[in-house]
Amino acid sequence: MRDIHAEPPSGARSPLRSVGLSGIRKPLVVDRGDRAHTLAVTFRVSVDLPASRKGSDLSRDAEVLAEVVDATALRPVGSLESACSAIARELLARHPYAREADVEASAEYFVRRGVSPDRQSFEDYTLLARARAERGAGGGAVSVHRTVGAEAVGMTACPCAMETCREALAAEYPALRDPALAGLPMITHNQRNRTRVLVDLPDGHELEVDRLIRAIEEAQSSPTFAILKRGDEGRVVLDAHRRPKFVEDVVRDLLQSLPAHFPSLPDATAVDTSTVSEESIHKYNVEASHRTTFAELRRPPAP
Amino acid sequence: MRDIHAEPPSGARSPLRSVGLSGIRKPLVVDRGDRAHTLAVTFRVSVDLPASRKGSDLSRDAEVLAEVVDATALRPVGSLESACSAIARELLARHPYAREADVEASAEYFVRRGVSPDRQSFEDYTLLARARAERGAGGGAVSVHRTVGAEAVGMTACPCAMETCREALAAEYPALRDPALAGLPMITHNQRNRTRVLVDLPDGHELEVDRLIRAIEEAQSSPTFAILKRGDEGRVVLDAHRRPKFVEDVVRDLLQSLPAHFPSLPDATAVDTSTVSEESIHKYNVEASHRTTFAELRRPPAP
Amino acid sequence: MRDIHAEPPSGARSPLRSVGLSGIRKPLVVDRGDRAHTLAVTFRVSVDLPASRKGSDLSRDAEVLAEVVDATALRPVGSLESACSAIARELLARHPYAREADVEASAEYFVRRGVSPDRQSFEDYTLLARARAERGAGGGAVSVHRTVGAEAVGMTACPCAMETCREALAAEYPALRDPALAGLPMITHNQRNRTRVLVDLPDGHELEVDRLIRAIEEAQSSPTFAILKRGDEGRVVLDAHRRPKFVEDVVRDLLQSLPAHFPSLPDATAVDTSTVSEESIHKYNVEASHRTTFAELRRPPAP
Amino acid sequence: MRDIHAEPPSGARSPLRSVGLSGIRKPLVVDRGDRAHTLAVTFRVSVDLPASRKGSDLSRDAEVLAEVVDATALRPVGSLESACSAIARELLARHPYAREADVEASAEYFVRRGVSPDRQSFEDYTLLARARAERGAGGGAVSVHRTVGAEAVGMTACPCAMETCREALAAEYPALRDPALAGLPMITHNQRNRTRVLVDLPDGHELEVDRLIRAIEEAQSSPTFAILKRGDEGRVVLDAHRRPKFVEDVVRDLLQSLPAHFPSLPDATAVDTSTVSEESIHKYNVEASHRTTFAELRRPPAP
Repeated sequence: MRDIHAEPPSGARSPLRSVGLSGIRKPLVVDRGDRAHTLAVTFRVSVDLPASRKGSDLSRDAEVLAEVVDATALRPVGSLESACSAIARELLARHPYAREADVEASAEYFVRRGVSPDRQSFEDYTLLARARAERGAGGGAVSVHRTVGAEAVGMTACPCAMETCREALAAEYPALRDPALAGLPMITHNQRNRTRVLVDLPDGHELEVDRLIRAIEEAQSSPTFAILKRGDEGRVVLDAHRRPKFVEDVVRDLLQSLPAHFPSLPDATAVDTSTVSEESIHKYNVEASHRTTFAELRRPPAP
Repeated sequence: MRDIHAEPPSGARSPLRSVGLSGIRKPLVVDRGDRAHTLAVTFRVSVDLPASRKGSDLSRDAEVLAEVVDATALRPVGSLESACSAIARELLARHPYAREADVEASAEYFVRRGVSPDRQSFEDYTLLARARAERGAGGGAVSVHRTVGAEAVGMTACPCAMETCREALAAEYPALRDPALAGLPMITHNQRNRTRVLVDLPDGHELEVDRLIRAIEEAQSSPTFAILKRGDEGRVVLDAHRRPKFVEDVVRDLLQSLPAHFPSLPDATAVDTSTVSEESIHKYNVEASHRTTFAELRRPPAP
Repeated sequence: MRDIHAEPPSGARSPLRSVGLSGIRKPLVVDRGDRAHTLAVTFRVSVDLPASRKGSDLSRDAEVLAEVVDATALRPVGSLESACSAIARELLARHPYAREADVEASAEYFVRRGVSPDRQSFEDYTLLARARAERGAGGGAVSVHRTVGAEAVGMTACPCAMETCREALAAEYPALRDPALAGLPMITHNQRNRTRVLVDLPDGHELEVDRLIRAIEEAQSSPTFAILKRGDEGRVVLDAHRRPKFVEDVVRDLLQSLPAHFPSLPDATAVDTSTVSEESIHKYNVEASHRTTFAELRRPPAP
Repeated sequence: MRDIHAEPPSGARSPLRSVGLSGIRKPLVVDRGDRAHTLAVTFRVSVDLPASRKGSDLSRDAEVLAEVVDATALRPVGSLESACSAIARELLARHPYAREADVEASAEYFVRRGVSPDRQSFEDYTLLARARAERGAGGGAVSVHRTVGAEAVGMTACPCAMETCREALAAEYPALRDPALAGLPMITHNQRNRTRVLVDLPDGHELEVDRLIRAIEEAQSSPTFAILKRGDEGRVVLDAHRRPKFVEDVVRDLLQSLPAHFPSLPDATAVDTSTVSEESIHKYNVEASHRTTFAELRRPPAP
């Protein structure tokens, strides 16, 4: 059969940065210590293409995905990022003309959580991973750059509207100025907040993604829960109003907490954070993001 | 050319309830009195198909849409629902084998709104319309059933968590029991709320959709706005906390308000309402819906 | 603590058809014979509400979901619809003021498939289920109405454009009129097609959902596959062009095949089918749908 | 009133790359020569934030958007990117603490097109624009980097499956080897394709976006149309099968065509292209992308 892909391009010639598949869904079995999780993963995989070839052998991408995923049914992988890493290496092996392979994955992740031991339920989070394999110059060894991340939905309460309401209500209810009421949490707008963090893992280092999720939830005004009886609801609302946060605060507090959560990660570790609050008082969202390194985060603040 | 559509079905024969197009986008010019609005409309159009024909002449659906839409560039239509009505009639004319034609439309609608005259900005709403044309028995006249609707995003504040927080805070701050603080709005969770209402218009009746939007916003704890300076934010938060609402309250209050908003609509008018609160303390949504008639809504409450 | 939900409505009084949760995600373990599948399910659950109560006890909805889902980790359920059925019954038990409970579920479902034994891979489908529980009049027994469904993505090739192209090409290439070329499949537009079917299960009857998926794929021009080597691709394209189908054909052929696939289902069984072709030659979709009964489908065609 | 945003951060201090609004919708009036188009634009706007401030004055973002958008009702802007540019400059003016402002916009764009003069209809495209304003060092002048882009939905037909089918059919129909049938277009899979291109505009240069859309459509196997009568459908299918394209071909041919379409753009002009084919024979998509410069594109191919 004629191999059209291996022929030279019929028209314009140009190398291409990336050719691959997207939106391909696969069930991946991951061993998270406590239990095997079957993650329904959305993959995006690609390799580069030299100017001399008309097409990339895309059926190999689907084969590699199938093989790695199938193997996990019998032998679960340790993490989503290690699966991405194995896929990226294998893509380079099967596309001998490519110099780079890129794998991105996202998956829903259920964790049992609750406000108290008798209010446990599965809460859903998102796991994120990426692996980029590069062929060494002159036939050298393949190097793989891994990124691990997570997204959690929680709650933010606005510190600014809280102060505005405090002043407005104090004008209407002078009794609010009673010193015995100092520190009383005041009304404000609060809303669903989605925060994600992605850590570029240096070679030889790993990261516990459950801890990443905890770091996100601690940086929000409050985590949120599926099961809340009347008293629990009050406690979550109170907690959130005692920790009012702008999106700016969520990003800063999350970043600042990472070195303590992951003390063994080296200074060169890069981290990307972004947060979105689905404002209750607006029809649009409010966002903040930052990219920095563990070295920056470990630097003592200027006096 | 062979007309495959007009041939009998090659395999199984069955009449079909509905065959048509969906996800087709068109710019429709609507004259709203104040100004001509160009609505970017998503249409779904269909007709039924008798057992004797293999296919529906779908290119006629696209032609009818193009003609009606093109005509509005020169002569704007009065409303989205009147455009749907014209399209539904014309579909029946061009599909002589069909007995029914169905047209559904939704469009984003920008209205200048604001907390005060100097804080005006475009707020976005959704217009909804449907028209179903039926051929009369024995070649009788075509009758058209029209539905008009709207969706607005606003805010709800939870009345239950407010009372729970009031009790919890009163235990911690006994000074809150000061009678001078009676009626003080307390903290609770609040969130983005989407509410829609669809009214089946009886023959010969019209409905002002801006009034429908107002009715929705009055039924929520508060409307929301693009531009809110610090003081405005406080006022919107205060207003919402003074009108705490369950999703149940939003649906009931909206329904109850309709006869006063539209006194000329007859008792037989049917109405469908649904509301979704994107709960700030949960990762899931809370919903309520109801379908009733103006006759029911006008009935005095049981003692 | 004050129970706001149990109080009478503060404003308008009206019974409500439906109050509940939507967009809640849970991992449900289903035993499909071959193996236990962990389905990531999106649930929507609701009950009705009498005019006398201000609110529905929504935390009970989340509790019921958590309990049923948790139990499946140890003891998998037989099907998504039986889980829905159990949830609907339990909702009525925990909402004594409600007369009806409604549960809707959809879940991604991975099945190993392939063009040949050595090209197997997981293909993704959608499972659909619904259960509606009604309290009997006068405290009578609860009855549950179950619906089971599935959606599959496949391919359709247009029979009309095929004939138009045949005529156009025959004019350009008279050699095409060679009788030795009779039946040669000709070029046409082909595209992704999503088809779903929902069956209302009569009491005491079950339905194998894998068979429903097979029925859908047989009604499309061809199923589609993740792994296709060069020769396989040609065969799938050829198969699809030998079975060109309008959306009308997909719906009719699928419906017609159901009585043979499910001979034990009684005449009263109702079935809903819809199909969407994401047309390659248009920016919009083409759709068809029908609702009928097994009695109709078993009726011999009129002569 | 206390200005919480201007206070120093309560917790962690870190500069932030980006704080702003997303998902905000506005109707922008653009003068496209032929007529004024009202574009429904989705904006995302942000500025950076120094370590010394707790919050960004987000209400100013909404005010700037409202002012620019309102002004276009009376005096339409020339293009989406010039509106983005004006917004980015004004954001820097209103956020004196910021060094950069970023504005991203996307909007649906309707153009009358058709296979022939009497088959005209509105086809929908997407306009894309971005402007990034940077404050010069030492209080120097603000510089603005503009990006202009578009996305068009068209059709691709696979060249590889076409050859595989040619060989398979020739084996079955030896008469196909008749030299009089050389060049006969053969069956293959074809599908919806979305292609986008983004051009970084050097200072003092403009770009006609309608021409960008034409360049995209010429690089696909065929454009697609809302209105196609039977004969038209055949012609579009034939055209697409006479220009079969991999995603790789679409990207390369599009890039190669740009210097001829925009001869006055300088060598330093950077361009980003990506394309997605929603494969009819797979449930997933196939993608290709590349980033290069006009200098590279103008370089004569290596011999």
